[in-house]
Amino acid sequence: MARAPDPAFLASRAQLEALDRADELRRFRDQFELPAGVIYLDGNSLGALCRRARERVRETVEREWGEGLIRSWNGADWISMPQRAGDLIARLIGAGAGEVVAADSTTVNLYKALGTALRANPSRRIVLTERSNFPTDLYVASGLAKHDGSAHEVICVEPGEGAIERVLAQRGHEVAVVTLTHVHYTTARIHDMRGITAAAHAAGALVVWDLSHSTGIMPLEVESCGVDFSVGCGYKHLNGGPGAPAFIHVARRFHHLVQPITGWMGDARPFEFLPEHVPAMGISRFLSGTPSVVGLAALEASVEVILEAPMAAIRRKSMALGEAFVALVERHCAGLGLELASPRDASLRGSHLSWRHPDSLAVMQALIARGVIGDCRPPDLLRFGFAPLYLRHVDIADAVMHLADVLRTREWDREEYRARPRVT
Amino acid sequence: MARAPDPAFLASRAQLEALDRADELRRFRDQFELPAGVIYLDGNSLGALCRRARERVRETVEREWGEGLIRSWNGADWISMPQRAGDLIARLIGAGAGEVVAADSTTVNLYKALGTALRANPSRRIVLTERSNFPTDLYVASGLAKHDGSAHEVICVEPGEGAIERVLAQRGHEVAVVTLTHVHYTTARIHDMRGITAAAHAAGALVVWDLSHSTGIMPLEVESCGVDFSVGCGYKHLNGGPGAPAFIHVARRFHHLVQPITGWMGDARPFEFLPEHVPAMGISRFLSGTPSVVGLAALEASVEVILEAPMAAIRRKSMALGEAFVALVERHCAGLGLELASPRDASLRGSHLSWRHPDSLAVMQALIARGVIGDCRPPDLLRFGFAPLYLRHVDIADAVMHLADVLRTREWDREEYRARPRVT
Repeated sequence: MARAPDPAFLASRAQLEALDRADELRRFRDQFELPAGVIYLDGNSLGALCRRARERVRETVEREWGEGLIRSWNGADWISMPQRAGDLIARLIGAGAGEVVAADSTTVNLYKALGTALRANPSRRIVLTERSNFPTDLYVASGLAKHDGSAHEVICVEPGEGAIERVLAQRGHEVAVVTLTHVHYTTARIHDMRGITAAAHAAGALVVWDLSHSTGIMPLEVESCGVDFSVGCGYKHLNGGPGAPAFIHVARRFHHLVQPITGWMGDARPFEFLPEHVPAMGISRFLSGTPSVVGLAALEASVEVILEAPMAAIRRKSMALGEAFVALVERHCAGLGLELASPRDASLRGSHLSWRHPDSLAVMQALIARGVIGDCRPPDLLRFGFAPLYLRHVDIADAVMHLADVLRTREWDREEYRARPRVT
Repeated sequence: MARAPDPAFLASRAQLEALDRADELRRFRDQFELPAGVIYLDGNSLGALCRRARERVRETVEREWGEGLIRSWNGADWISMPQRAGDLIARLIGAGAGEVVAADSTTVNLYKALGTALRANPSRRIVLTERSNFPTDLYVASGLAKHDGSAHEVICVEPGEGAIERVLAQRGHEVAVVTLTHVHYTTARIHDMRGITAAAHAAGALVVWDLSHSTGIMPLEVESCGVDFSVGCGYKHLNGGPGAPAFIHVARRFHHLVQPITGWMGDARPFEFLPEHVPAMGISRFLSGTPSVVGLAALEASVEVILEAPMAAIRRKSMALGEAFVALVERHCAGLGLELASPRDASLRGSHLSWRHPDSLAVMQALIARGVIGDCRPPDLLRFGFAPLYLRHVDIADAVMHLADVLRTREWDREEYRARPRVT
């Protein structure tokens, strides 16, 4: 990272530095803890630590737990954290207050959402999704189909423009639920949430959207799109920390339904300890067990920071960073074996980019050794994410400079970069 | 708390101070952060913060997340935490290495365990439990029975000596699963794990034990008792912090079964992102989504501390503390309206005690105002727990002195103690 800028990048760097000086979000970078010598392009996988989250965790562990002990359930209002964090997230996804709670993992929340949606549409047997959907979404759907004894069938379409709509046109009368990830985890391609939701509803199906790669990074309007259920991840663009609680959103018209994992935190009167379950009114019935208080503390703090930035500005900068990355790769990495796997049009993609390269794992490990951190996705993708709150435009120039250098010199072609890490 | 000891307690205090001087566990108290002026008798609800957990959380958040970022999944081996913490907990419950993982909540783990057990015994329709079981256990059982389309029936017996065995003798051939909490959350009564497990097996039923109130506080032998599945809480006697990850134990003979909430963390090759789920070999298939890394860090550290103490010594001191509490209440609170709701014989109970009092909520709030922290359970119970690693014998004398004083002076009979807190 300490090396001098490549002369070929000087003009681009100067332009990007000018963008940084005019950046309406520049004040946010100081709120994050970023290690020296690192350009972090993996906030779409694990968001960086903001200072407020760090302080909130210390406060929660050392004062609320350490000193307050059990009293903090009331005294620090731990008991309201899932709803409080949920209401913050509701503002990011365009849901109403009281329609979101934060707790559990995305997987568990998807199980609850999909399980509830299937019960809400009991005469139909098909769960419709994409074969390239994030694996946990497919595993939850197929697990539920096997488990609930109702002979559900999971139909996975090959991804492609209008593929979901075509199945809906043919077999829509059999489809109980359409479940998709809004921004694809490899290509970053954005699904048409409004159009697909409308097509599903027209066929009498419900929708469950996974917003893991879109929440906190682009404007979302689940209520205006008529979305029935959605879930999303707390540790990607929400910066809630490793294994942060996820969220579940349920449109108010489904708040009378009972989700499958009924537990005491979803009960109307958990501290009366009654043997018969009476689900809480509203979104709280979608809770199950005791949520991670420490995890919620970090998540709540980090979402507060995001809400201080205008979402339109976040999206603008996210697109500008991605555009700069693509333009520089096109200019400086031509002929070096990269092939763009994401939509070329920034308006069609979320906040990351993927490129095919036959030696993607080794290339990424060489980049990480230089302090440029992205990740890999099978079979051959290099993935780079753009977090507008803590990335500078000039970081993009430096990252692509390293990428070009690693490719041109075949620096990646070393034994040490060939070993496959457990987590890629 | 600053008041001088009641003369009536001086002889008892001196005896208890002598026990503290000879306490084989006395060195552990210094490892915990305990607020001044507090006698903490609620470690059975939320265990206290040990210094190692505090430091481990700081390290995980500030160094591993803040500096290591995504690299810490490999570099800090976050990916192995559920199995690593699980192996530590396995030593506490007498399970084999590779039979326990820590993740999710007790409720979610119970759902997985019970859902798997029901699939393993598909020709039977009854889930047998106690009506006074912890509510979340009942809610999970009834939720599963409604959900899985197999017409399961949950039979809740009234608690009582031999009650479960009697139903097994009569209708055992219909019982799929017996699920009970080993140490009762109000009375602390210990179920005969070995006898009930044997009776269930003799009838062809499986068992799912909830060890929430027994793990970390008494010797447990799930493997030797032939237990099929068990779950337990991370934030009670394990001191893992508010909303800590819970655990699930599955006997190795059931590791070929598939649990209902199939997710990517339970897949054999999660980082190959394949559309078809192939469950991981062994206990890892009982994971679902991404676990709370920060929560696991605290839990792992706090369980390490427990494992440094001989479990026989923990149980001995736990019983001695309880015995001292009962003896002092019998001597100093006679005629003040308390009625013991726990077994009088220490060998029949876990590490807490409950007393009936018609104004239990107000009495407990008056005690808490004096710094003696226990809790309440409906309808009229005062509950006091004993954590041998950080409580002194002399604390028991001081706690009962306050209790006697609050009752004798009717200090609890004030407006300010009448309001019902949200969390009791």
